[in-house]
Amino acid sequence: MSLPDPDQKETGRIEAFSDGVFAIAITLLVLEIKVPHEVEAGRLARALLEQWPSYLAFLTRFSFIGIMWINHHRIFRLIHRSDHGLLLVNGLLLLGVTFVPFPTALVADYLRHPDEYVAVMVFNGTYLVISIFFNLLWGYAYRRGLFASSTDSRAPRGINRAYLIGPLLYLVAIGLALVNATASLVLNLALAIFYGLSRD
Amino acid sequence: MSLPDPDQKETGRIEAFSDGVFAIAITLLVLEIKVPHEVEAGRLARALLEQWPSYLAFLTRFSFIGIMWINHHRIFRLIHRSDHGLLLVNGLLLLGVTFVPFPTALVADYLRHPDEYVAVMVFNGTYLVISIFFNLLWGYAYRRGLFASSTDSRAPRGINRAYLIGPLLYLVAIGLALVNATASLVLNLALAIFYGLSRD
Amino acid sequence: MSLPDPDQKETGRIEAFSDGVFAIAITLLVLEIKVPHEVEAGRLARALLEQWPSYLAFLTRFSFIGIMWINHHRIFRLIHRSDHGLLLVNGLLLLGVTFVPFPTALVADYLRHPDEYVAVMVFNGTYLVISIFFNLLWGYAYRRGLFASSTDSRAPRGINRAYLIGPLLYLVAIGLALVNATASLVLNLALAIFYGLSRD
Amino acid sequence: MSLPDPDQKETGRIEAFSDGVFAIAITLLVLEIKVPHEVEAGRLARALLEQWPSYLAFLTRFSFIGIMWINHHRIFRLIHRSDHGLLLVNGLLLLGVTFVPFPTALVADYLRHPDEYVAVMVFNGTYLVISIFFNLLWGYAYRRGLFASSTDSRAPRGINRAYLIGPLLYLVAIGLALVNATASLVLNLALAIFYGLSRD
Repeated sequence: MSLPDPDQKETGRIEAFSDGVFAIAITLLVLEIKVPHEVEAGRLARALLEQWPSYLAFLTRFSFIGIMWINHHRIFRLIHRSDHGLLLVNGLLLLGVTFVPFPTALVADYLRHPDEYVAVMVFNGTYLVISIFFNLLWGYAYRRGLFASSTDSRAPRGINRAYLIGPLLYLVAIGLALVNATASLVLNLALAIFYGLSRD
Repeated sequence: MSLPDPDQKETGRIEAFSDGVFAIAITLLVLEIKVPHEVEAGRLARALLEQWPSYLAFLTRFSFIGIMWINHHRIFRLIHRSDHGLLLVNGLLLLGVTFVPFPTALVADYLRHPDEYVAVMVFNGTYLVISIFFNLLWGYAYRRGLFASSTDSRAPRGINRAYLIGPLLYLVAIGLALVNATASLVLNLALAIFYGLSRD
Repeated sequence: MSLPDPDQKETGRIEAFSDGVFAIAITLLVLEIKVPHEVEAGRLARALLEQWPSYLAFLTRFSFIGIMWINHHRIFRLIHRSDHGLLLVNGLLLLGVTFVPFPTALVADYLRHPDEYVAVMVFNGTYLVISIFFNLLWGYAYRRGLFASSTDSRAPRGINRAYLIGPLLYLVAIGLALVNATASLVLNLALAIFYGLSRD
Repeated sequence: MSLPDPDQKETGRIEAFSDGVFAIAITLLVLEIKVPHEVEAGRLARALLEQWPSYLAFLTRFSFIGIMWINHHRIFRLIHRSDHGLLLVNGLLLLGVTFVPFPTALVADYLRHPDEYVAVMVFNGTYLVISIFFNLLWGYAYRRGLFASSTDSRAPRGINRAYLIGPLLYLVAIGLALVNATASLVLNLALAIFYGLSRD
């Protein structure tokens, strides 16, 4: 601890700032679940059940932002050094994360509307952009050699393959929305589960 | 500090992210206490006293989220290593924590309503789920051997017993709500005090 | 880093959680400054100047929460070990901090109202309670010997004297509100400046 | 880790608190992008495109707060020790950061209004004050010798020159607003890009 070791310190603060952004984005969501008002006697249970879409939206957004945090964590577990470019690329990723509540609310509001395909395309388009930013972050750290020297060289490569596929599959999901909006959402969900559960 | 020691680093970031979520959930609550509007001369003191339920709700929610933070802290004081599953199980627990404001508002709004038992069941049901998630977290860390090697083996076992009782007692509280909603809330409060004050 | 050193780890997390609470409480305040709407041509500058009370309220709240953070920081710079009681006492203090926006809004709304003395008493009463909690925190850490062994024994004693005077002066401010609400607020401000600027 | 090393601990907590403030300020912004309501069939895409100013405002504010975080990070990478004055000066800077959403909303609302020059002057005035606070922070740390002893003496001097120019250029931008509000905004944007992209 006597040596300055500025690189380690830098990564710590990028992670702390990112954690703050993820934590706020994930916690603000509950504010959108409303208590039903002026319910007659004997009707509260039904009134609560009827607002299932708002619970589902809460659960979906929580899961998606949580999964993105896990992936961010997974990449930064390997990164031990930092530079100016890493701050900028990480900033792009956080921009995507803080934007997520908007397309999610859009899909929730327009799901049975004739224009639902537009909402689903915006939704999948957001994840397309985020998956590109994840690739940028990973690729930047890889090319600049910011990984810990002790990192097993297979770990970055495994992440690499999983991330490269992401943008392609989100492009497919965007095209699919023109044919079938529900199928497009299901593909999005499948991708989220894949990125959430896959172990490196 | 020359060795990579990736496990310690991981726990630190899970705790930082969780701290952020707890801190936001506990701080947002004050936004719901409103300043009384257009009060006549000589009536402000009474107007302030009359909104005692909103102070009580603020106090209750603050205490409950605070107690959950203390318990989270207590478990992670013992956990020194981390893996992918720990991230997922901890995520479930945070999902429960961020959901708490909704059932609390529900009880506050429906406490003297004929359907108050529904509100109290949802309230205790939320804590049942959270207590199960606490057991999952503790059990996962125990089975995967994520505790620090220096941990006194009695500490985890003491926590274990206190946590295993939790879901059973919350189930009792849910059943009790069908008979007497107030008694069910009192049992919930007693459990919160027990988990808040018990020292390991 | 090879020794577990659980005490240091604990203090770190209490501070991180407290930092989150302070940061959120201090940042949410700007949401209450509103952009003036539908202002005629040539009137925007005046419209902006006319809402000076909302800038003053923003500045006051920011300063007060900032000063409390500095004092919290000052105490925890000395505390290196932690136990269950410290979590509870620190929780009481955070409860006071998250409550601050309510009495501040109350004073802003009722400052030229016949009942302004009520609002000012609630305002100073909140700071009375917070100053008692600061004494509790400091006294608890002192009695339980949670300070770092290297701590100069004069530093805690200096803080001690400054903190013990606090509750007495806030009591004076509460009594003063019955005679003159403005004088009571000025005393509160003077105390805030004293605690903000005094160096240990 | 056996030595107390209180200075390093202090800087860590100032940075953690500041990170929290920056993270909240940057994340709250998305709450202001609204989902368009009651859009007729076939009109959603257009309705979404028509609210481009709110996306632009989101992007602008995110970038500006992000750039200020990068600059804060850059300064604190060099600062390793802390004292009471640093807390106060850093507090001034955070005051400026939490205020940013107000002038940004002001410009967004009054951009094609006859009084747009007032809004743009407030906007650039805010950045003038923030740039002065950045100079105060840097100057304070420099004069009090709070930099790490290992710091290359050229790094602080490089930052010094870039920061000293800031207030002068923001003064020019304020004057320019009287002649041409758009040109004043463009100069502000150019400065933001300069401070965001310049590497030390």
